[in-house]
Amino acid sequence: MGSDKAPKPEIEGVIHAVRNYKVKVLLVGPEQLLKHELAQHPSARNLPIEIVNATEVIGMHEKAAQAVRSKRDSTMRVGLRLVREKIAAGFVTAGNTGAAMATAKMVLGALPGVDRPALAAVFPTSANKPAIMIDVGANVDCKPQNLAQFAVMGEIYYRAIFGEKKPSVGLLSIGEEESKGNDLTRQAFTLLKDLPLNFVGNVEGRDLYNGSVNVIVCDGFVGNVALKISEGLVEAVRYLLKESLRSTITSQVGYLLSRSAFVDFKKRLDYAEFGGAPLLGLKGVAIVGHGSSNANAMKNAVRVAKQFAESGINFKIEQELALGRAEVAVPAVANGWDDVS
Amino acid sequence: MGSDKAPKPEIEGVIHAVRNYKVKVLLVGPEQLLKHELAQHPSARNLPIEIVNATEVIGMHEKAAQAVRSKRDSTMRVGLRLVREKIAAGFVTAGNTGAAMATAKMVLGALPGVDRPALAAVFPTSANKPAIMIDVGANVDCKPQNLAQFAVMGEIYYRAIFGEKKPSVGLLSIGEEESKGNDLTRQAFTLLKDLPLNFVGNVEGRDLYNGSVNVIVCDGFVGNVALKISEGLVEAVRYLLKESLRSTITSQVGYLLSRSAFVDFKKRLDYAEFGGAPLLGLKGVAIVGHGSSNANAMKNAVRVAKQFAESGINFKIEQELALGRAEVAVPAVANGWDDVS
Repeated sequence: MGSDKAPKPEIEGVIHAVRNYKVKVLLVGPEQLLKHELAQHPSARNLPIEIVNATEVIGMHEKAAQAVRSKRDSTMRVGLRLVREKIAAGFVTAGNTGAAMATAKMVLGALPGVDRPALAAVFPTSANKPAIMIDVGANVDCKPQNLAQFAVMGEIYYRAIFGEKKPSVGLLSIGEEESKGNDLTRQAFTLLKDLPLNFVGNVEGRDLYNGSVNVIVCDGFVGNVALKISEGLVEAVRYLLKESLRSTITSQVGYLLSRSAFVDFKKRLDYAEFGGAPLLGLKGVAIVGHGSSNANAMKNAVRVAKQFAESGINFKIEQELALGRAEVAVPAVANGWDDVS
Repeated sequence: MGSDKAPKPEIEGVIHAVRNYKVKVLLVGPEQLLKHELAQHPSARNLPIEIVNATEVIGMHEKAAQAVRSKRDSTMRVGLRLVREKIAAGFVTAGNTGAAMATAKMVLGALPGVDRPALAAVFPTSANKPAIMIDVGANVDCKPQNLAQFAVMGEIYYRAIFGEKKPSVGLLSIGEEESKGNDLTRQAFTLLKDLPLNFVGNVEGRDLYNGSVNVIVCDGFVGNVALKISEGLVEAVRYLLKESLRSTITSQVGYLLSRSAFVDFKKRLDYAEFGGAPLLGLKGVAIVGHGSSNANAMKNAVRVAKQFAESGINFKIEQELALGRAEVAVPAVANGWDDVS
């Protein structure tokens, strides 16, 4: 209920999802409203979609901590409770990210061995595979061992969702050498290089979008800044390009002829295709979509939640971190992960 | 001598600069090489361009600290010595940024009251005025009072170079409320709001490119990541767009017709137009251009160095910080700056 145009894109996306992915979906929100909206889609009458009543909604601009405390019957809390009680295999929201994180931590709790759950974001790249960045906002002040845990969680997630056998893991810094960076990244580097990961060392901001690394590790402050700069820059590029193309008749004609290319281009940059950001390290599956998610984004978020739940990601994270591998250096084991699954 | 294609773009840019800006330029580098290159431009024979010999060059990929120590006759050290000795009013390089910062700190030293000189970068925005971000790499681990000093220095610079009377100053964070951010930004916020600046509070990554704020303050780690992400994303956007436009004949024709718009668009995103990044807080003027600077970028860097030297920026910084305003809160004085200049 918390996204910009809720609940329309949610309901449309869910209808597409149940038709395509063999899932059953529980829609959580004010019962009458959801019934009314669902009734606008007569063809969906016999689909496996149920409504679970929740009377309160956390708005996009509410302060997370306060809203989570005061709204005991919020859609987020009710939805996440369904996950905790194993009634649902996963939870998807396009609402207030801060509130979703806080509620998920409170209702689901962290996996054993995880000090800090983290939010991972999926980025498009100019290569064929997307990249993920972890953390993008759950933890603003981190210790080196938090970053090591983010690396382990992000790597497991990438492997499961994007089918890469040995995803490369990079530490976001400001120079390639081990000595480059700030106090946090230099200490994290020494932890990361001893983990049984395909650790490629420091990566720089420009590696985010060129596909040279699969999993990018950083603290939540830097990650959130990176995400929002990217959104802002894409907006600025679209604006400047449109303005330039409007400036002459010739280029206007050119724009009309190349319009399908622009649609294609926008689609490739569209975060909606990747189905939202997973919260990793929780006892359960939670996916946070962008507030402006459309039906396609919601559909993909349901797909990702399903893959997340089915692929045993949390079991692997628990195994790996309960063994203490992210804190105590152990020698790398070839295909060590595969034994776990 | 340290840029990617040195010394060609430097010499071409300098020729344009002396023709346009009423400056005299001292070219610092291996004398024979520079003489030879200058001789390729017969029309420049009578221009006020002189050569100062320096035998060593610091490469783009050399480690800054080591290169600065060992190369005592580097072009950077000789050039900056000319500034210290008041033979030159300012220094411009498109070489190794780390080496330029280290050499400048060593040769020029910091202004009284400045704990840490900082590097400011100029960004294009979708509004008419660019934005500057400070620090973008000189100081990776900062204290709150460093950020307060960056704010004061950045504001003075923006006012002088871009002619804005009351530039707005924002603190880069991950939410607008004062409580949002990490330990560093929360503490810096309390210092900044007591400074005699047009402080607009926290700004987010997306504000960088929309022109809503003139001066963006952050630590050098975050700023450097921001800068490199932007470069990487612009590259990715260009690549994806080109690929999409090539995919059909119609859109190829469209591309040809709209080509001038693309040239215009590229130009607006081109950092070269803004003439390089100033090092602020030093006893002297030093501008660091991008390693891939072309002649136009070098010309603009000379223009910016001239403006920097003529506008008394360093005198104002010294005045403001020696008074301790960046550390001790004082009430805002309307137009307080104007009395100083």
